[in-house]
Amino acid sequence: MAKLIALYKHPENKEAFDDHYFNVHSPLTAKIPGLREMKITKISGSPMGGEGKYYLTCEMKYDNLEALLAGLRTAEGKASGKDLMGFAGDLVTLMIGKDA
Amino acid sequence: MAKLIALYKHPENKEAFDDHYFNVHSPLTAKIPGLREMKITKISGSPMGGEGKYYLTCEMKYDNLEALLAGLRTAEGKASGKDLMGFAGDLVTLMIGKDA
Repeated sequence: MAKLIALYKHPENKEAFDDHYFNVHSPLTAKIPGLREMKITKISGSPMGGEGKYYLTCEMKYDNLEALLAGLRTAEGKASGKDLMGFAGDLVTLMIGKDA
Repeated sequence: MAKLIALYKHPENKEAFDDHYFNVHSPLTAKIPGLREMKITKISGSPMGGEGKYYLTCEMKYDNLEALLAGLRTAEGKASGKDLMGFAGDLVTLMIGKDA
């Protein structure tokens, strides 16, 4: 399995972020061909206290790296990427990874 | 389920980091009471190219937030935390989260 991890910093307006994220962005992303699983985690803080820098993470699994990269190049992948840059381009860090 | 996510920046010496991480730190962490699952992901880069800021992430699952916090307060939890601060205190970001 290969995975794409999206890590979002705290948005200024959490309500507007959540509304777009769950009602627009996630459904767009869910359509990407080859996507096997999508796991969204809300960050509530740090064991050291404080809310920390990050707000939410999403892990998207594909069969392998080739399938992941091919998925991002499809029309659905491009639509998700374009939407992402529009509402959270300054908040998101994207990482490609695989199980160690 | 509640999860603790550890996110590591690139270490200066990847070989020394991996050696300590996989042979010392992970076995210490695996002993924490209440830990249900531990998933390590090696980051290979970003879809935009470049290696990015982060090197590795580890997701540790517990039944709920209380179990997670209780686990960190045990002798095993403290031993793992102390080891973490010793070899990667300047590299790691810790986040507590739950499925959205």
